[in-house]
Amino acid sequence: MSYTLELGKNAKAAEALIASAGTREKNNALAAISKALLANQDRIIAENAKDLEAAKANGMSEAKQDRLRLDADRIAGMAKGVDEIIMLGDPIGEVIDGFTRPNGLRIIKTRTSLGVIGIIYESRPNVTVDAAALCLKAGNVVILKGGKEAIHSNVCLGAIMREAVASVGLPADVIQVVEDTSRETTKELMRLNGYVDVIIPRGSAGLIQAVVQNSTVPVIETGAGNCHVYVDASADLDMAVEITDNAKTQRPSVCNAIESLLVHKDCAEKFLPMIAERFKKHDVKIYGCDKTIAILGSGIEKAGETEYATEFNDYIIAIKVVESLDEAIAHIRKYSTRHSECIVTSSLESAERFQREVDAAAVYVNASTRFTDGGEFGFGAEIGISTQKLHARGPMGLRELTTVKYLINGNGQIR
Amino acid sequence: MSYTLELGKNAKAAEALIASAGTREKNNALAAISKALLANQDRIIAENAKDLEAAKANGMSEAKQDRLRLDADRIAGMAKGVDEIIMLGDPIGEVIDGFTRPNGLRIIKTRTSLGVIGIIYESRPNVTVDAAALCLKAGNVVILKGGKEAIHSNVCLGAIMREAVASVGLPADVIQVVEDTSRETTKELMRLNGYVDVIIPRGSAGLIQAVVQNSTVPVIETGAGNCHVYVDASADLDMAVEITDNAKTQRPSVCNAIESLLVHKDCAEKFLPMIAERFKKHDVKIYGCDKTIAILGSGIEKAGETEYATEFNDYIIAIKVVESLDEAIAHIRKYSTRHSECIVTSSLESAERFQREVDAAAVYVNASTRFTDGGEFGFGAEIGISTQKLHARGPMGLRELTTVKYLINGNGQIR
Repeated sequence: MSYTLELGKNAKAAEALIASAGTREKNNALAAISKALLANQDRIIAENAKDLEAAKANGMSEAKQDRLRLDADRIAGMAKGVDEIIMLGDPIGEVIDGFTRPNGLRIIKTRTSLGVIGIIYESRPNVTVDAAALCLKAGNVVILKGGKEAIHSNVCLGAIMREAVASVGLPADVIQVVEDTSRETTKELMRLNGYVDVIIPRGSAGLIQAVVQNSTVPVIETGAGNCHVYVDASADLDMAVEITDNAKTQRPSVCNAIESLLVHKDCAEKFLPMIAERFKKHDVKIYGCDKTIAILGSGIEKAGETEYATEFNDYIIAIKVVESLDEAIAHIRKYSTRHSECIVTSSLESAERFQREVDAAAVYVNASTRFTDGGEFGFGAEIGISTQKLHARGPMGLRELTTVKYLINGNGQIR
Repeated sequence: MSYTLELGKNAKAAEALIASAGTREKNNALAAISKALLANQDRIIAENAKDLEAAKANGMSEAKQDRLRLDADRIAGMAKGVDEIIMLGDPIGEVIDGFTRPNGLRIIKTRTSLGVIGIIYESRPNVTVDAAALCLKAGNVVILKGGKEAIHSNVCLGAIMREAVASVGLPADVIQVVEDTSRETTKELMRLNGYVDVIIPRGSAGLIQAVVQNSTVPVIETGAGNCHVYVDASADLDMAVEITDNAKTQRPSVCNAIESLLVHKDCAEKFLPMIAERFKKHDVKIYGCDKTIAILGSGIEKAGETEYATEFNDYIIAIKVVESLDEAIAHIRKYSTRHSECIVTSSLESAERFQREVDAAAVYVNASTRFTDGGEFGFGAEIGISTQKLHARGPMGLRELTTVKYLINGNGQIR
């Protein structure tokens, strides 16, 4: 039996038990995990050190090494994250809809667990704990396939969580960490139809595309964000400066940060110098269309197809002056990854048209795109932000890790 | 530009217009389609005759030829189906959830169209009209890839619907029929990521598996049904006979018909002769376990792994006598395709355990599995019955052909 098939069979064997576990049992398991992470701090740090040593030897960048590093604070942070998941409501058993048919059949639509979830992710070992805890709370089994760079950390975190889960009488196999990080094993995991119900990739666009291209198990795409702020003719320009600056510079590396700024021609002469001045604070590099260059001067590089299509994830922005709301919407339709889009406006008509016609998971009027986040939406923790249209769109919390089941009660109805 | 890419580009170009069309516009288009089908009856029958001629020449079975045949009655039936879709409520714009965050952000979760839907199906030409009308009502663009056997009928129906849609001022390309039915084209359609948002296969298990294995576009699986009735120790045996007979014989070829019958040992001696007597009406062939054979006698063939795993879609049933509810649930877990499962019982505890522990789209207490159907659930027409867990599970009506969008309104909120 292949290694991945064994993982799949273990997962299926654990599925029914966790699916029918009560909220109290699942919360007990999460509390045991949180406690075990803190109690095993030294063990985690020692295993993490092996990953860091290998990273150094392989010449990994300082920034990436920092992402990989686990210390007492970060372990406490992971444990706190698990504690917060304990506090969230249990989605399982929620009644979504219910009705009685003319023939007397009573039909109830309830929320139930998805089954076995495969998570394929990159270097940050905190994902191992976050994802496992969320999946567990929603009554699911998880198979975690992290990056090779974090293998010692991930295997250690997995072992600690499995011990904790077993200590409260639930099957350890509700959490499995893939120990063989080879490409072949990952590919097999993506093709374990019948054992894995969904694969969620978390990480770079390259990782996500590789999963979409190779997986026969259903995939939920997350993360790619080429987001825009459009400053309408009637915008409050001070508000537009605050929103644009926040959406671009508060944390440029994340998917809900913006990459492009569209400005209506009627306010461009006034607004562009205001935002350019503000961008100096973070030394934001500006690409612009001809009109932007005409207004802001020769320090600006020319923006073209490439710049408007790029997710910079950095202190870089592409600016375009547009003739109309229509041009703004058309530009967004062409370049957007349908994650988060914003209009700053005082016009009710512009606001309504923008929200109706822009196709994205989250469409903002007069607020920063940075709010597209499970925590900011009030969902508690999130497993990612879906940029596809099936099953889940936008921040994915516990509810998005469930499916539904119809319960139908009759007294002998036949057709 | 390849043929499928052209279809994809046409579809994308039509997407925004149909997504923002109002209910009245969409209903006008549907009414025009219904009218055009009736007005072009002779044209449809003439094109259908070409398919029937080819079918005869290729030695297609009489039963299949009958499925392919279009006559005045069937065309009127298709038009009536479209009229019924006009009467259904429009899911687009429905508000699903809404809340205000502590920072004052108002977040509304609304229903919006999915985008471009590819339907891959087999011989019945009525699917061409049903699927197109449902997709249109939900504000979607559809690309229809039917079977080679029905190509003349499908192209003709597509042309008539396109003319009708254009006649009310909507883009004809909201409905496209794939005219090249080659395997290569179908494969390309399944890989048109960025142009097609979801593929829904309708047809045999073989067709569905081929789509799941080859598609990089998200797929919604439909249809496979290895369903069970379990007769509990406390069941009303007369009710159990009616339900079992209905679920098996009322229409054995469909996915919500049962394939196996499980009977608790405490009522098997009384119940099995009752149901065997009833099954004589349709000359149902019975496979049984040793205990079934001991009770019913030597006319019964031995049921094994193969019989319990087979979707007969015919007047054939596999029977097993079980020791307990646990054994029934375990058997169902092993063989079920998670479509529809039924318990007949008078015990509240058995009913509740069965509904909690059996993992299927629809779990029945004391009613026939034949009710798993969009019409029977009150959803109006259906595009299929999803047997997967992502996005949609059970009968898929108009709502299941939509996605969501968060509309967020603020007054300058930043993080």
